[in-house]
Amino acid sequence: MTSERLPASPVKIRRALLSVSDKTGLIELARSLAAQGVELLSTGGTAKAIRDAGLAVKDVSDVTGFPEMMDGRVKTLHPIVHGGLLGRAGTDDAVMAQHGIAPIDLLVLNLYPFEKVSADPASSMEDIVENIDIGGPAMLRSAAKNFARVAVATDPAQYAGIVEELQGNDGTLSAQTRFRLSVAAFNRVAQYDACISDYLSAINPDDGARALFPAQQNSNFVKVMDLRYGENPHQHGAFYRDLYPVPGTLATFTQLQGKELSFNNLADADAAWECVRQFERPACVIVKHANPCGVAEGVACGDAYELAYATDPTSAFGGILAFNTRLDAATGKAILDRQFVEVLIAPDYDDGALAYAKKKANVRVLRIPHGEGRNNFDIRRVGSGLLMQTSDIREVGRDELKVVTKLAPTKEQFDDLLFAWRVAKFVKSNAIVYAKDHRTIGVGAGQMSRVYSARIAGIKATDAGLVVPGSVMASDAFFPFRDGIDAAAEAGIKAVIQPGGSMRDSEVIAAADEHGIAMVFTGVRHFRH
Amino acid sequence: MTSERLPASPVKIRRALLSVSDKTGLIELARSLAAQGVELLSTGGTAKAIRDAGLAVKDVSDVTGFPEMMDGRVKTLHPIVHGGLLGRAGTDDAVMAQHGIAPIDLLVLNLYPFEKVSADPASSMEDIVENIDIGGPAMLRSAAKNFARVAVATDPAQYAGIVEELQGNDGTLSAQTRFRLSVAAFNRVAQYDACISDYLSAINPDDGARALFPAQQNSNFVKVMDLRYGENPHQHGAFYRDLYPVPGTLATFTQLQGKELSFNNLADADAAWECVRQFERPACVIVKHANPCGVAEGVACGDAYELAYATDPTSAFGGILAFNTRLDAATGKAILDRQFVEVLIAPDYDDGALAYAKKKANVRVLRIPHGEGRNNFDIRRVGSGLLMQTSDIREVGRDELKVVTKLAPTKEQFDDLLFAWRVAKFVKSNAIVYAKDHRTIGVGAGQMSRVYSARIAGIKATDAGLVVPGSVMASDAFFPFRDGIDAAAEAGIKAVIQPGGSMRDSEVIAAADEHGIAMVFTGVRHFRH
Repeated sequence: MTSERLPASPVKIRRALLSVSDKTGLIELARSLAAQGVELLSTGGTAKAIRDAGLAVKDVSDVTGFPEMMDGRVKTLHPIVHGGLLGRAGTDDAVMAQHGIAPIDLLVLNLYPFEKVSADPASSMEDIVENIDIGGPAMLRSAAKNFARVAVATDPAQYAGIVEELQGNDGTLSAQTRFRLSVAAFNRVAQYDACISDYLSAINPDDGARALFPAQQNSNFVKVMDLRYGENPHQHGAFYRDLYPVPGTLATFTQLQGKELSFNNLADADAAWECVRQFERPACVIVKHANPCGVAEGVACGDAYELAYATDPTSAFGGILAFNTRLDAATGKAILDRQFVEVLIAPDYDDGALAYAKKKANVRVLRIPHGEGRNNFDIRRVGSGLLMQTSDIREVGRDELKVVTKLAPTKEQFDDLLFAWRVAKFVKSNAIVYAKDHRTIGVGAGQMSRVYSARIAGIKATDAGLVVPGSVMASDAFFPFRDGIDAAAEAGIKAVIQPGGSMRDSEVIAAADEHGIAMVFTGVRHFRH
Repeated sequence: MTSERLPASPVKIRRALLSVSDKTGLIELARSLAAQGVELLSTGGTAKAIRDAGLAVKDVSDVTGFPEMMDGRVKTLHPIVHGGLLGRAGTDDAVMAQHGIAPIDLLVLNLYPFEKVSADPASSMEDIVENIDIGGPAMLRSAAKNFARVAVATDPAQYAGIVEELQGNDGTLSAQTRFRLSVAAFNRVAQYDACISDYLSAINPDDGARALFPAQQNSNFVKVMDLRYGENPHQHGAFYRDLYPVPGTLATFTQLQGKELSFNNLADADAAWECVRQFERPACVIVKHANPCGVAEGVACGDAYELAYATDPTSAFGGILAFNTRLDAATGKAILDRQFVEVLIAPDYDDGALAYAKKKANVRVLRIPHGEGRNNFDIRRVGSGLLMQTSDIREVGRDELKVVTKLAPTKEQFDDLLFAWRVAKFVKSNAIVYAKDHRTIGVGAGQMSRVYSARIAGIKATDAGLVVPGSVMASDAFFPFRDGIDAAAEAGIKAVIQPGGSMRDSEVIAAADEHGIAMVFTGVRHFRH
């Protein structure tokens, strides 16, 4: 990390240009600037709004001697305006005087709503192109480049701070403030141009068809925090959020107590939370090393936790625990008295639960309010590349299940099959989940061949002292051979849910029939690597 | 996917404005345009270069009546220029005539080299800020917005195509060409602004310090191909590359034959290739479901393959195979005769290997030329967020290993320990690798507790008919308890490599001493989830 020399002096704001598409807070700002003796310049609708509020304002076209033209396509693209924004104090004073260019010290500007218009399916191509702002970004970039002398606001949320600083500092803005505002303006322009590139580069020039994946994929993320390190201590890490986080997702969390979150905490918290929020009944998910090691639904969060924990108490140690219901005090106490917890996640907490958690001050406690949203896209980094895909949000309903064996599952088995299926979706492939009575009995994760995942699920259940016979089994992908079914039968599995679709489905179905196992096909696969 | 109405008519190019920072191909282009009767406008150094080549060119300042000023900060930001770019045929003819604005039909412009200057540690903040181009992006955006009438080139690589089309079509450019060029210009501007935002938002306004992770993280990727589907058939997917792929990485591949690559193929190919390119001796890595299921070094690629395959023949079926040496014909034949292969990767192939591969036309054969580069950053998507970290490129050398047991490893064991360590780095956590004589004997991957990974490695070795006694073991992270060592000893492991750093290291070391196992600590962890 090197250090940059930034300009140091405060700048007196004497002249401001205001040109906004979003008029929120405009009049209050203009009034405060006028009260500070700042001369106001403006254009079109913004000038009219300021004038209607009874304030003096000069039209940019009067200053440039050039009218607004082409339905507003050209109004501020003039050397009198850009020279006023770009002129350097000292260096350019003479040339500015010679050409009648008065310095502009503050630019207040927000852009045509390209993002909104282009996202609206009712917009025509003409509407969308007309909402590509040209003059706005040009002025933002001029002002932002000249942070040595000029301040720029591009969001109504910045106005109050600017007014406060002007009022408290004799009408000046500090170098730090100008630099901060400059960076915010360049950030905003980068977002705006990213959206235009995403939109236009998705269109096929030959037939106008729009692709789901644009030819250039641009993204902008906002840093939430630097992390102590990355996945390992020798790696550096940081956590970023989307510009507009979707309600209900991890990035909307509030940390209520505990140590700093780590890279692995956040990755595991996401897996735990996304898994638990699938369930309608009170549920608990315990994640360790990116895999659920115990999942259960219960009457309330308390029994859900007990059942999830019992699946694999060894792995639950130091785990990430997520609940889809408010965590009550008794359950909070039961957890914290029994086991080491890295992260606790719930949509809310009883006061008693939070009070008790304070005794284990290191435990990270996160609140994530419920919400319906999920990521649209998932990405995976590879060598100098990016794999991008729509998120795996496909849910399989009871009526989609196709019974392929002579024996059909009982009602209870159907419920358990769907439960196990939801868990399997969050277990690394190859994934095998044994479950009974809405709780996991054994989880076989991350194996290179399916039959080993089945064996591991059985081994783990036995080690945890759980009874496999009578359980059901979910497999995230089809069984390529009958061996997985044979292993399951030997363990006492009575019903199976899997996508189907193998060349050897008939052999696999015959194996199930042979063992008296009921099997259903989902037609949907859930690889998760 | 909806369809957009694009403008349809070709446009006669009568007047071009050229203003380039990179002068490559400029004169040839200007000469061709002049030969087509195109009037040339230009600025500063570009105008001089064209004039020096003996071509007629008009200065923009003569057209605007405004001089270039402020060391070039202001030269084209004028309504005569932007009106010339933005004016709509038909709609704006009258206003253009009234104000003496002549239409500009072609803009040829590339930007100040901000990317290059800001990446140079010798550049001052002043240099960097001065290289934020203001007039250039403004003109690019004006011309690109007006693709209905105007064409824009922003890269010398586009010149030849433009000239060819002009020559073949009576001096006109088609609507498709103009739209393509417009999108390329918006893509370029998005890249440029992303780089400025990344750079400036990494600077702390208070002390000028630069952070590794900027406050806004912007990225731009170029689509290589749409994929048939994502990780699962109900997901859509696409593969993108960095703007500037690093030599030696996956994104530089050429596909020599075979079916279309899938999302999972590419993810696994990356894991296989990154693992195999670590080794200096000829090596083979077989990946299945994101994990290496067999790795070996050999005298040549042939024996490396045989040994890698033998680790887990079941999983190797349908695997992704990567070699770090040219693949010879005999090995190619041995692989393809024996097993189903999804993807074959090597830096190069003997003709005989390629000829034989043609018999299995579905097998995807990739060539990835050797290169020294690796990704700087790794990213992980979570709910409305992004985990970002520096890549795990840390290598552990022989001299960094600390012997912690009474017994030191033999020379052969040291070699095997380092081999196993390199493999473990690419196995999903918790990772345990058994190895002997530079080949894997058993791989225990993706478990929620370390002792199970150790047990799985043993079970898999036994199932494959391999002899564990005398092997070494690598663990990607420390053993929290002695049970992992006890399990290893029981399997016949003689030496262990692991990071160390557990609270119970002394207990773990005592266990190793008890079993007569030699153990070394790396001080480095390699979680990979």
